[in-house]
Amino acid sequence: MKFSPLFWPVKLKKNLIYVLDESLLPFKLKYIKVDNYNKSISLIKNLKTRAIGQVLLVFYTFLLQIKKAKNKSHKELIDLLSKIANSFNNARPTLSFKYLTDLILGWACSGEDLERNILNFLEKLKNARIKQAQKVAELLNDNDSILTHCNISGLLPLVYQFSKAQNKKISFFVTETRPYQQGWRLTIWELKKVGCPLTAITDNTVAFVMQEGKVNKVIVGADNLAKNGDIANKIGTYQIAILAKYFNIPFYVVCPPPSGARTGKDIKIEIRSDKEMLEYKGRNLTTEGTRGFYPAFDITPSHLITKHIYFDL
Amino acid sequence: MKFSPLFWPVKLKKNLIYVLDESLLPFKLKYIKVDNYNKSISLIKNLKTRAIGQVLLVFYTFLLQIKKAKNKSHKELIDLLSKIANSFNNARPTLSFKYLTDLILGWACSGEDLERNILNFLEKLKNARIKQAQKVAELLNDNDSILTHCNISGLLPLVYQFSKAQNKKISFFVTETRPYQQGWRLTIWELKKVGCPLTAITDNTVAFVMQEGKVNKVIVGADNLAKNGDIANKIGTYQIAILAKYFNIPFYVVCPPPSGARTGKDIKIEIRSDKEMLEYKGRNLTTEGTRGFYPAFDITPSHLITKHIYFDL
Repeated sequence: MKFSPLFWPVKLKKNLIYVLDESLLPFKLKYIKVDNYNKSISLIKNLKTRAIGQVLLVFYTFLLQIKKAKNKSHKELIDLLSKIANSFNNARPTLSFKYLTDLILGWACSGEDLERNILNFLEKLKNARIKQAQKVAELLNDNDSILTHCNISGLLPLVYQFSKAQNKKISFFVTETRPYQQGWRLTIWELKKVGCPLTAITDNTVAFVMQEGKVNKVIVGADNLAKNGDIANKIGTYQIAILAKYFNIPFYVVCPPPSGARTGKDIKIEIRSDKEMLEYKGRNLTTEGTRGFYPAFDITPSHLITKHIYFDL
Repeated sequence: MKFSPLFWPVKLKKNLIYVLDESLLPFKLKYIKVDNYNKSISLIKNLKTRAIGQVLLVFYTFLLQIKKAKNKSHKELIDLLSKIANSFNNARPTLSFKYLTDLILGWACSGEDLERNILNFLEKLKNARIKQAQKVAELLNDNDSILTHCNISGLLPLVYQFSKAQNKKISFFVTETRPYQQGWRLTIWELKKVGCPLTAITDNTVAFVMQEGKVNKVIVGADNLAKNGDIANKIGTYQIAILAKYFNIPFYVVCPPPSGARTGKDIKIEIRSDKEMLEYKGRNLTTEGTRGFYPAFDITPSHLITKHIYFDL
């Protein structure tokens, strides 16, 4: 099994964290070195890493800070970890950082072996994600043509390889995913690495390929899963779900663990600066002085989701 | 009334046609000089002009060639005009060039005063378009927030001014309209020129702004109107129409004259080179070697259209 660099985009080696710079992909494969939590927060805010990368960065950052704090008292350690947790919780609103930091703070307060707990958790996380890819592959049929949006952090290359091992040929239609183009920059890059057939389309072409029968399934990820099955995912996911319903095409969601939100209404949608969306590599894309509206995510209600592929830790 | 340069983007002065280069907008306002029909065809194929620009370029090209052919016999003239008509008819498939060239060949064959007929037609075209903008303005209410896609060739700035004269404040949400970005490059530019309030969104944000009640009407143009009311318009229009239906938002179409197509099925959709979509200013947007699918238009069926604003010549 060949793993995409996006499957595990953050690593800890000795006392340094290496974070895959997703903003440069697919044109440059570069890891950013991180030696303190302020740097971690800044990478998250600036979209250098995202999705599973954020989750890994939280755990590795705590691990790094715990290693560095060997001489601190238990109280000092808890104070430090609380401060770090607080910074992460305020980094970006839509993914539930609090779910992750509460887990770590819980271990810390109960006096458990923190380092071992974190490493165990990461190992379980890895296995759960591989199992999730297997479950997705089992849902697929030979000759399926799947529309996907944004990027599911190395999961689809695994789905492709599991399907292939089961003698099922699958292919993808990959949306651009404006404004940050995760579909064309990340998903295409990682699918091509494992030889998976695919076709790039703009976000405007979804209804067209559905109407023409060019796709027969949709698979997307999620940044937040509420208890009632509503999900938050990259902006554009919601309209794809409505279109899939209209054309009677199954819409599958690869879910993270539930965040604690009761419904989608409890999930806060991040509104990012319009400058990020109205510029491309420093060049204006429209008339100067134009204001834009850039919600980074949207909520897809559970009733539009044909099947949730849950995350079993 | 202030007219957008996009309302009448092609002009004939002496023996030279001036075509507004829409590919450079909004960053550069440049007119391309044209002195023969092959150049006209090439500008159309390369998207230097589009929509109403294509229509005007057909008429002005014939006018120019007729002026130049004063010494030809009637038969020679008809042969030349047929040849030009044929070239236009094969330039791009979705807009019905044949509807336009048949009109001119009809006048030519019946021996009518060709130059006068063309100039009369253009005068009627201009008045009909202004009237169409008035009709749209009459449909609007104070505080309407209107989502629009692609560009309706100078019509919306007129709609804004007519509405203002009727003491109705209106504003727009303008989609990017990937891959050619006519929404952000053209519509925003011309709306800002007349002081109309607007917000730029990506094509992925349509369902979000509809769900949040940020828009209460949709207005788009059309490149081809079939007899049954189906329309062809810029790729992405169809999915906006489905979403408008889902959210119960009125969807208005500003129509050209009917093309003769019976239904949308008779309209040929242009599939353009994926290179145009996968590059931005000569830079790859995704992994090299990726193939894309780029239909330039889609068909919106009549049943999704709340109201057609017809074109009365």
